[in-house]
Amino acid sequence: MKKHRIKQIIASFTENKEITINGWVRTKRGSKNVSFIHLNDGSTIENLQVVADSEKIEESILRDITTGAAICVSGLLQKSEGKNQSVELLAESIIILGKADPDEYPIQAKKHSFEFLREKAHLRMRTSTFGAIFRIRHALSFAVHSYFNQNDFVYFHSPIITGSDCEGAGEMFHVTNFDLQNIPKKEDQFIDYEKDFFSIPTSLTVSGQLEGELGAMAFGSIYTFGPTFRAENSNTSRHLAEFWMIEPEVAFNNIHDNMDLAEEFMKYLIQYALDNCQADLQFLHDRELESEKNLPKEKRNELPLLERLKFVAENEFERLSYTQAIDILKDSKPYKKGQFEYDVEWGIDLQSEHERYLVEKKFKKPVILTDYPKDIKAFYMKLNPDNKTVAAMDVLFPGIGEIIGGSERETDYDSLVNRMTAVGIAPEEMWWYLDSRKFGSAPHAGFGLGFERLMLFVTGMTNIRDVIPFPRTPQNAAF
Amino acid sequence: MKKHRIKQIIASFTENKEITINGWVRTKRGSKNVSFIHLNDGSTIENLQVVADSEKIEESILRDITTGAAICVSGLLQKSEGKNQSVELLAESIIILGKADPDEYPIQAKKHSFEFLREKAHLRMRTSTFGAIFRIRHALSFAVHSYFNQNDFVYFHSPIITGSDCEGAGEMFHVTNFDLQNIPKKEDQFIDYEKDFFSIPTSLTVSGQLEGELGAMAFGSIYTFGPTFRAENSNTSRHLAEFWMIEPEVAFNNIHDNMDLAEEFMKYLIQYALDNCQADLQFLHDRELESEKNLPKEKRNELPLLERLKFVAENEFERLSYTQAIDILKDSKPYKKGQFEYDVEWGIDLQSEHERYLVEKKFKKPVILTDYPKDIKAFYMKLNPDNKTVAAMDVLFPGIGEIIGGSERETDYDSLVNRMTAVGIAPEEMWWYLDSRKFGSAPHAGFGLGFERLMLFVTGMTNIRDVIPFPRTPQNAAF
Repeated sequence: MKKHRIKQIIASFTENKEITINGWVRTKRGSKNVSFIHLNDGSTIENLQVVADSEKIEESILRDITTGAAICVSGLLQKSEGKNQSVELLAESIIILGKADPDEYPIQAKKHSFEFLREKAHLRMRTSTFGAIFRIRHALSFAVHSYFNQNDFVYFHSPIITGSDCEGAGEMFHVTNFDLQNIPKKEDQFIDYEKDFFSIPTSLTVSGQLEGELGAMAFGSIYTFGPTFRAENSNTSRHLAEFWMIEPEVAFNNIHDNMDLAEEFMKYLIQYALDNCQADLQFLHDRELESEKNLPKEKRNELPLLERLKFVAENEFERLSYTQAIDILKDSKPYKKGQFEYDVEWGIDLQSEHERYLVEKKFKKPVILTDYPKDIKAFYMKLNPDNKTVAAMDVLFPGIGEIIGGSERETDYDSLVNRMTAVGIAPEEMWWYLDSRKFGSAPHAGFGLGFERLMLFVTGMTNIRDVIPFPRTPQNAAF
Repeated sequence: MKKHRIKQIIASFTENKEITINGWVRTKRGSKNVSFIHLNDGSTIENLQVVADSEKIEESILRDITTGAAICVSGLLQKSEGKNQSVELLAESIIILGKADPDEYPIQAKKHSFEFLREKAHLRMRTSTFGAIFRIRHALSFAVHSYFNQNDFVYFHSPIITGSDCEGAGEMFHVTNFDLQNIPKKEDQFIDYEKDFFSIPTSLTVSGQLEGELGAMAFGSIYTFGPTFRAENSNTSRHLAEFWMIEPEVAFNNIHDNMDLAEEFMKYLIQYALDNCQADLQFLHDRELESEKNLPKEKRNELPLLERLKFVAENEFERLSYTQAIDILKDSKPYKKGQFEYDVEWGIDLQSEHERYLVEKKFKKPVILTDYPKDIKAFYMKLNPDNKTVAAMDVLFPGIGEIIGGSERETDYDSLVNRMTAVGIAPEEMWWYLDSRKFGSAPHAGFGLGFERLMLFVTGMTNIRDVIPFPRTPQNAAF
């Protein structure tokens, strides 16, 4: 027999039905004679109101019903007269499963700062805000898998430990089985890697793309969805050392197909959240409005959360080339008034201020930029006929900046070897990757979506540490 | 406009419809006047037969149509008269996208050994066998997410890099940003971890369970599904250094609920594969029968693959205690005849030969063993009232052995601290885990399913290196 959960009880309840339900106390209020307990079991942001009459529930039990305590309640479901709930549970008996000493339990029913809650990441999931965030994280993850499954993509588990470091030299974490205190060295004092677990230097992956391309050459359409790592010392609200990335790769797609896929995919994900996370999104929407109440207008979001999501789900993304973007920036007010911190010149890597201008001021919607200068993009991107630009694309989102980076891939063996050599990658070390251009090479394209950046957009949160259960950042691997 | 894929074309085709399709050549045969090309695009194990008349397709093109080449074919769909296919494509034009030199391309249309193909893991996915395996891997992954989503579990991304090493001391990979050639040391010659990325020693996770338990105390039901690591020098057909694990954790569940969940979940996954992977499973079924043809009867599987899957999906698992299992083993023929290599005595860790006897000889079905001696199980498992055993469970599968390990968890703060201390874990280092027993502690239970072991069972493959795209094992992190 399946246990009752509050989500189902609230969605469809039978009056006077006798049930037993488990959960955690969010609040208790009331009088000497009757207590109103708000019970949450994590299945929904909504609490079940439990009515405990002191004639039925012993005082010693009621005393232990404090915020955070786990309890088991049996009783009768009733229509509620209260304005905040439609159903309540008239308690016949209550069992205390686990107490939560009010003097010690840190997550009391009051506002806590996000900074404080980050220190309590093992308990913050029990708050309404983080409950909502991580249920949405679940829903979006499932939406990712659903979208690709419906479209006949194969979920491809690219390796996490890799012996290849062509993409992230210097930004990769080393993986080793050595005793770090006594690393075996050869006579010449260099590390004796033959004694390490894999017999070669290994690192944590920065992208599953290269392996994903091999998959696309077998299955046509694949995607990865897994943890990805950067040993970058960026202590910002946008960077994590460990994050989850989604990387589709599609054979026979060109850069335009790639843009279509990215746009359709993002709209699907956001619409899925709107359709499946109403209560959680409404809560975050209200929370944001409340927290912006005292801010000056220019610091508030132009649209509230739910409007932002609907807007992106329902409107076309703007598509333009990097070169067009440079022209627009040079023609812009902030440029002419000298308000940009960084200069604008064809060939530069666009800075956050430039991207924000394009997305938030000029077009006021997601923007897809394409055809970047080859020198600021990766070696595997397809060289355009102009010999200056590559078939790259970045999707820029309001408030987030770059959320997707992708490209059509270079499929010509010789061109690829030239580009690798030019950027200092030894082609012989990448023989397996090059084989995909040697045998049955075909046009293909793909992109990477940073899952936590998507989470920021969908939840309206502003610090990336708040959308992953246990963030890993410089100096922090707690829990 | 979505591109055509062979899966849809074969499933529902319109005669005389003009289509363009991309794919890779599996074989080409025929005469001077007409060639029959078997084209595969990875969407299905089935090939589309392309008929190329030499009057329409130039000889220079036909010459480049060799196994492995990528081509783009336009033509008319026709009902096929051939006995192996129902539809064929009459080519009007063919474009060679990428050649595959027959003298160099290693994956020619003939039998290759699995050992050979492991060396070519970047290309083996293009074979029928590995195509089938990895499409099934996709389907089973999606089934995992679907099952939990339907049952209101939250997908919980537990961390991969961890500062906690309580479970896997000695079997964990170190993660560091140090230059291994010059590790900074303090005056006392010990490593100066403050200079490392996270400022503490960190490793790759061996299990997301401990963090998952924190999630269960917030959301009620959670699951993890992610990569997991063991730096164990086990060069066997059952072990990987990097594998994917699924770990559900459910608040308010006891060991019996846990067994019910495990059994229902396994049956769901296997039934999902039977319902959604018919063609791929049929191929692997036939392949196994073929490969067993020349084996003596006792080396063959008792049931062929599809029968094995149906049998598990449709029959109840056997449930018994470890103590009962010991009694059965002591009463068994192989024990009495001295045929077991390892002794049988209450308190031992069951060996593979013992598990196989129980599963394959005695019960001939999956077996769930419970209530193991506490000394051979982990510290977090709930101590039974007998004070000798813990509420552990292992699910044993025919041909695989242990596929699931789980338990009801110890929820009492003091008992847990005692167990930790007894096994040498410092409670103060696990303060965050212990907090879950301090604040709102509740009964809960969960288990870990090794995804690649499930893959072995469902595909009938016998080496775990053949069910993950790029296996990581001692001395091997290629690709």
